[in-house]
Amino acid sequence: MSANGQSALLIDGKKIAEDIQNKLRDDIKTWSELHKRKPTLVAVLVGEDPASCKYIEKKMQAAEYVGIDSRTEKLHESVTEDELITKVVELNKDESVDGILVQLPVPQHISERNVCNAVDPTKDVDGFHIMNVGKLSLNMMTFVPCTVLAVIELLARTGIETFGKNVVICGRSKNIGLPLSMLLHSDARYELPGHEATVTLCHRHTPPEQLKVFTKTADIIISATGVVGLIKADMVKEGACVIDVGINRIKTQEGKVKLVGDVDFSAVREVAGHITPVPGGVGPVTVAMLMKNTFQAAMDRLKQ
Amino acid sequence: MSANGQSALLIDGKKIAEDIQNKLRDDIKTWSELHKRKPTLVAVLVGEDPASCKYIEKKMQAAEYVGIDSRTEKLHESVTEDELITKVVELNKDESVDGILVQLPVPQHISERNVCNAVDPTKDVDGFHIMNVGKLSLNMMTFVPCTVLAVIELLARTGIETFGKNVVICGRSKNIGLPLSMLLHSDARYELPGHEATVTLCHRHTPPEQLKVFTKTADIIISATGVVGLIKADMVKEGACVIDVGINRIKTQEGKVKLVGDVDFSAVREVAGHITPVPGGVGPVTVAMLMKNTFQAAMDRLKQ
Repeated sequence: MSANGQSALLIDGKKIAEDIQNKLRDDIKTWSELHKRKPTLVAVLVGEDPASCKYIEKKMQAAEYVGIDSRTEKLHESVTEDELITKVVELNKDESVDGILVQLPVPQHISERNVCNAVDPTKDVDGFHIMNVGKLSLNMMTFVPCTVLAVIELLARTGIETFGKNVVICGRSKNIGLPLSMLLHSDARYELPGHEATVTLCHRHTPPEQLKVFTKTADIIISATGVVGLIKADMVKEGACVIDVGINRIKTQEGKVKLVGDVDFSAVREVAGHITPVPGGVGPVTVAMLMKNTFQAAMDRLKQ
Repeated sequence: MSANGQSALLIDGKKIAEDIQNKLRDDIKTWSELHKRKPTLVAVLVGEDPASCKYIEKKMQAAEYVGIDSRTEKLHESVTEDELITKVVELNKDESVDGILVQLPVPQHISERNVCNAVDPTKDVDGFHIMNVGKLSLNMMTFVPCTVLAVIELLARTGIETFGKNVVICGRSKNIGLPLSMLLHSDARYELPGHEATVTLCHRHTPPEQLKVFTKTADIIISATGVVGLIKADMVKEGACVIDVGINRIKTQEGKVKLVGDVDFSAVREVAGHITPVPGGVGPVTVAMLMKNTFQAAMDRLKQ
């Protein structure tokens, strides 16, 4: 139990996502009436991975809610890299399409990097194109990966200070951990403002006892590793903010599939000041951020 | 005085640079004889900043030593951004030129970013083009900034282990601190191998007492801030490796200009296990790495 005898405040990602999407819905309505068209998002889904199908479904639902035209191009899992890229290039050329996302992972015979680089950078609402990665590194205005935006948004809307604070990020993935570290450590005066935190990037080769030293000094812990139960109560400083980006499917004793994060939630919430649940934390806000990026892409296209 | 009663081993950057350049000199000789041409490096210098002139001079000397044809295109400090970029584009098109570097800083009326992006990425031996920044973020083979390569090389040639070690980088510049953090934290199995350290990136808004907490736990401290005397003896863990990237010009009591780093050298060397001096540490190796990048650019061009 934390010092004040209360468990952590739950950061309600579902509610925050709703707030964002309601505001977006209004803005998109106004914009669509003015320009006589809706923003358009196309998802490309290769194969039928159940988790990927579920994500796509949520994205399509959110798009409908906020007033974005969306559709999913489904390709067989045997599609070649060339065929997939041909499809992407076709969408690049299609003037009616504002945002394109290729649902990852793609089958192993296809290079994820080649596919991400095939998407027109101005339609790259996932922010995975190498040019957009470079821009983010340099804090230039660009599409920031949706999960990264979601974490930043959750912190901001919960009033968590980052300036001069210690942030520990667990997980160095190119789509989440690394770009998060870039946005969190950097200078607030850039075109794409950074968040002025001191950031430690930990990963599988950080020795467990060292990981604990770092997390214990952290004001904010962000875990994006896919390791169930990685963040335990004795690793968390009292009152710290814990953001759980992990989405892990585990089987319960009854044989059902259950979603859990990287954080030992019930124990950590007794120590932390703020905590995100899984599900209902980062996930819904990530979807909302995809909608925001798509609307941004649509607005930018009209300005060109 | 450190535990063994001895002061830190000095990492001799001048000697390491010589070793690198002697090896390069042999390799370039063989290559030049085979291909009937020498690698060619062109530096573009705007204005007459004394420090910049000095750097350029050292680069030209090193080029001559290793067998790289080099020249400096000098432009007046009143040159416009367009004129500078026109010059760069001309060098891009010149088939006889392998490597191009624009000596930074450029005058304030010119956008450094626009100039860096004007250099053909395949001739960008400084590694500052946005595409090369993106590649480095993703650990794809690319030109890595010379100072970053120099630090990595100094660690490797001194036998300093990075795997699972704690590294603290002071300074978040886009040309040094940030790319260093990328190479040091990342996975060794990438095309451009990372170094598997746990990296904390500190900067001007890291509170001094927190900075000390981090540096005290660090196996390797790298300072690239331009703050004279930032790293003091009581901030360093006994036996740690201290790499000083700072190059600061201070005036002595006699009114002479003296080069010093960020580290309180004489006190820190009594605590550290290894330490680089300034001058004679990172600087000479940085120049050697520029030669290496230029030779690489020349070899890559022939393969195209």
